[in-house]
Amino acid sequence: MSTSFSTWQARFEKLRSNKFFETFVIAIIVISALVIGARTYDEVSRFEQWLGVLDMAVTVFFLVEILIRMAAEPRLRDFFKKGWNIFDFLIVTASLIPMDESEMVLLARLLRIFRVLRLVSMIPELQMLLSALIKSIPRMGYVALLMFIIFYIYAAIGSFLFHTVDEQLWGNIALAMLTLFQVATFESWATAVLYPTMEHFPYAWIYFLTFIFLNAFIFLNMMIGIVLDVMQKESAQMALDSGEGEEAEIQGLRSDVRELRAQLDRMESALTKRDTNSPQ
Amino acid sequence: MSTSFSTWQARFEKLRSNKFFETFVIAIIVISALVIGARTYDEVSRFEQWLGVLDMAVTVFFLVEILIRMAAEPRLRDFFKKGWNIFDFLIVTASLIPMDESEMVLLARLLRIFRVLRLVSMIPELQMLLSALIKSIPRMGYVALLMFIIFYIYAAIGSFLFHTVDEQLWGNIALAMLTLFQVATFESWATAVLYPTMEHFPYAWIYFLTFIFLNAFIFLNMMIGIVLDVMQKESAQMALDSGEGEEAEIQGLRSDVRELRAQLDRMESALTKRDTNSPQ
Amino acid sequence: MSTSFSTWQARFEKLRSNKFFETFVIAIIVISALVIGARTYDEVSRFEQWLGVLDMAVTVFFLVEILIRMAAEPRLRDFFKKGWNIFDFLIVTASLIPMDESEMVLLARLLRIFRVLRLVSMIPELQMLLSALIKSIPRMGYVALLMFIIFYIYAAIGSFLFHTVDEQLWGNIALAMLTLFQVATFESWATAVLYPTMEHFPYAWIYFLTFIFLNAFIFLNMMIGIVLDVMQKESAQMALDSGEGEEAEIQGLRSDVRELRAQLDRMESALTKRDTNSPQ
Amino acid sequence: MSTSFSTWQARFEKLRSNKFFETFVIAIIVISALVIGARTYDEVSRFEQWLGVLDMAVTVFFLVEILIRMAAEPRLRDFFKKGWNIFDFLIVTASLIPMDESEMVLLARLLRIFRVLRLVSMIPELQMLLSALIKSIPRMGYVALLMFIIFYIYAAIGSFLFHTVDEQLWGNIALAMLTLFQVATFESWATAVLYPTMEHFPYAWIYFLTFIFLNAFIFLNMMIGIVLDVMQKESAQMALDSGEGEEAEIQGLRSDVRELRAQLDRMESALTKRDTNSPQ
Repeated sequence: MSTSFSTWQARFEKLRSNKFFETFVIAIIVISALVIGARTYDEVSRFEQWLGVLDMAVTVFFLVEILIRMAAEPRLRDFFKKGWNIFDFLIVTASLIPMDESEMVLLARLLRIFRVLRLVSMIPELQMLLSALIKSIPRMGYVALLMFIIFYIYAAIGSFLFHTVDEQLWGNIALAMLTLFQVATFESWATAVLYPTMEHFPYAWIYFLTFIFLNAFIFLNMMIGIVLDVMQKESAQMALDSGEGEEAEIQGLRSDVRELRAQLDRMESALTKRDTNSPQ
Repeated sequence: MSTSFSTWQARFEKLRSNKFFETFVIAIIVISALVIGARTYDEVSRFEQWLGVLDMAVTVFFLVEILIRMAAEPRLRDFFKKGWNIFDFLIVTASLIPMDESEMVLLARLLRIFRVLRLVSMIPELQMLLSALIKSIPRMGYVALLMFIIFYIYAAIGSFLFHTVDEQLWGNIALAMLTLFQVATFESWATAVLYPTMEHFPYAWIYFLTFIFLNAFIFLNMMIGIVLDVMQKESAQMALDSGEGEEAEIQGLRSDVRELRAQLDRMESALTKRDTNSPQ
Repeated sequence: MSTSFSTWQARFEKLRSNKFFETFVIAIIVISALVIGARTYDEVSRFEQWLGVLDMAVTVFFLVEILIRMAAEPRLRDFFKKGWNIFDFLIVTASLIPMDESEMVLLARLLRIFRVLRLVSMIPELQMLLSALIKSIPRMGYVALLMFIIFYIYAAIGSFLFHTVDEQLWGNIALAMLTLFQVATFESWATAVLYPTMEHFPYAWIYFLTFIFLNAFIFLNMMIGIVLDVMQKESAQMALDSGEGEEAEIQGLRSDVRELRAQLDRMESALTKRDTNSPQ
Repeated sequence: MSTSFSTWQARFEKLRSNKFFETFVIAIIVISALVIGARTYDEVSRFEQWLGVLDMAVTVFFLVEILIRMAAEPRLRDFFKKGWNIFDFLIVTASLIPMDESEMVLLARLLRIFRVLRLVSMIPELQMLLSALIKSIPRMGYVALLMFIIFYIYAAIGSFLFHTVDEQLWGNIALAMLTLFQVATFESWATAVLYPTMEHFPYAWIYFLTFIFLNAFIFLNMMIGIVLDVMQKESAQMALDSGEGEEAEIQGLRSDVRELRAQLDRMESALTKRDTNSPQ
């Protein structure tokens, strides 16, 4: 029994790492994505039944594929040790939950969209890219906090001062923050936000210009800071690597010179010994 | 008396550097910020009284906290030596000024918003970030001056030429500079500024395109310049650091070789002395 | 016959690499570009016949020029080995296809526009620039794929949720992707896309802000990544180059020291041999 | 006579390099700029006479100042050797040309605006900044040419295809290039350019998206290229500088070792000579 189990496991293991199988899984993910996309077209509604069948087939295939990958592990625990496996498992199980009521159909569809993300877990280069992105988050944390503080203060001021000008834009602090984000992206900031405000508050440009300069200034410094930070680490690493080779070379040279000296010491003592002997 | 005073001072000192106390102060600042934010919602007006009490409590707490931090210093003078302490002191005292008249209420509220900035003085990482930002200001100074000169010249030209086209946009040099800033951020620069102007001045595109190119060109060069400037300093520092190790190594090697030579000199003179003696 | 042929070939070869001939070809390309540009003006229509003749002359000149360059090669095969020659050949032959029907006139004109690209194949600096650009494409490939996945997922969600709000913007996944690209360029994203959507879905700002942050975040990281990647390669190359000189120097020093040692060995053995002999 | 002349020259020389005089000239330039700015305000028209007098005074002062600087040079020829002096001379003489006719008044005013640029010639830091900017122009030349070719080709295509859609935007190749520049700055590119075009040409998005991607791609690569280019030069310079010190050190070490060897050669020959003598 145990032997037959490990035979099966080996077979699954082999299947999982099969290049053709991997390509096939990626193809199914792409088809699943295309089905989701096709459903957004009204003309496709008459093929609704066919799409439903196709969707069911994709769901079953994903279930089988994840079961194979689970069976390929010596212990089930190992499967859940890898973050991407948990991610795949959640996406597959989420699409298994039966949702019959009409209201839930929308949620079911939304959940299926995230299947496209399985592309990231299937392609190693995308996995690497994503983990590099996630690693860079903490570096941006405090800058984001500082920017949030600035947005909050300006939004509070804007909300106090300008809420009589336009309730839609400055009605409360949340709306004001959204308006400020719009200003920060330069979207209609002058024509739709600044000029209407300046009709009531002629000095409103001080508020907007300081906000824009402050934002641009912090953003620029953050970008430069990140570039320099990463670069410094890499070049320090590189200097260490290249330095080591040369350092070792010089170290070797120094020990060579020390040996020369020991030899000379021996020779000198031999010479002086003879000198003291030779007169005799 | 003096002993009891220093006991108290030590206690305050201990309290000030207490991690839990610090977190508590940060929490109070956040609550104070939320109260300010909440007041911008109309629905909150019926809790006005409660918010007033909360606000008063926060003011009192901040007063007590700053008094504790003052008392923790051996001499009061030391407290004001640190920039951030002066900053905190100004914010706290400003919110103590009683403002009863209805007109002053707005100012009082605005002053309270700046309490949120105390977050920056409480979190060391934000302090570091801000001082890094402040340090980078002088580097940008002359570029800003150059840009201002370009804006001023273009605004004067624009105001002379186009003030008949649109009084709102080109009425005087101040309005023209604001319009040019809008153009520099690409906000409706073509649809709302360029095309209406071109109806009267078909060659106005020369004015706008040269302005945009000049700005983009200076901005780009400034960014590149800053990146290179900072980088150069850092890598010069690094080369100095790493160079020192190797330099010392090579220096050591050289003095080793010089000692070898001295030894050989001794040996050679011993040899030649004997050579001149031995024939005898 | 063969001799006369190679004489001609040498003459064509000489003509092709003639600086004046090259400048003349560039001038013809520029004239051809100006003719294309001139045709877009309605006022030029009365010179239509002259432009037609000029166009024919340019076509004939390009044909002759490419025949000369073909004849200049020892073997015709060599001509097609260079990518830029194939590019030139396609552009020239495409403009030879006779297109009489009125419908084809547009296509014929479009094909002639691409003659301007021959400037790139004639100026070596532009060739280098373009090959540098083409080399940088693979580096951006996976980031582009990741961005496409994000666009696709957001477009699917947007199409499901918001298609009732505006059929023009969210009608199907293709329209939704175009709308999202508009949002990513910040073009009227708030006034024309976000606010109309928020009237029906008050929490739509979560959708748009996460999308904008995700995009900006990936884009920023990609840029920084590319800068660092290229820089690392170059400085690694440079460290290798500069390191080699010093490394060779230190290697030479070490072999010098080893020779010293061999010499000392000889001397020591000579000394000890005599010491053992001299008592005799 | 000659002595009195050189005394005067020395006095002017002293005046020119006087720090207070320099500050005074800068102050006059700033006042001159403010007068130009003030004239753009309608309310100022009643002070027109005073401004005219002030303007005349500034003109006279500038004339005197440039005459002093000319007189301070040993030979007049030396004055015109410096680019900035020619620049100042042109600005000052241009404002001396009498322009009485009402039509010329505008030109006279425009010429006076450029006096503000004298700030750049007076402040050394701005001079340095500007020459750095000018130096970076050639590096951008070929990229600008490549971009112009792409704009030209797209404008020709756009003008042929879309001129029936909107004569204002695509009427001829010049208008089309302006429209494409608007698209490149993302200004209303979707709402005002893409969507109206897509109503007639549903596949117009291909045209616009390829254009935007091509532009963004070239621009990004250019920026990265410039950063790397400048950086490479600087770090090559730096490696040379730091390398020289170490290289000299190692060279010195090597010559030390060579001297050791010459000494050992002498000693060895002395030893062997004695060995061959001593048996006798």
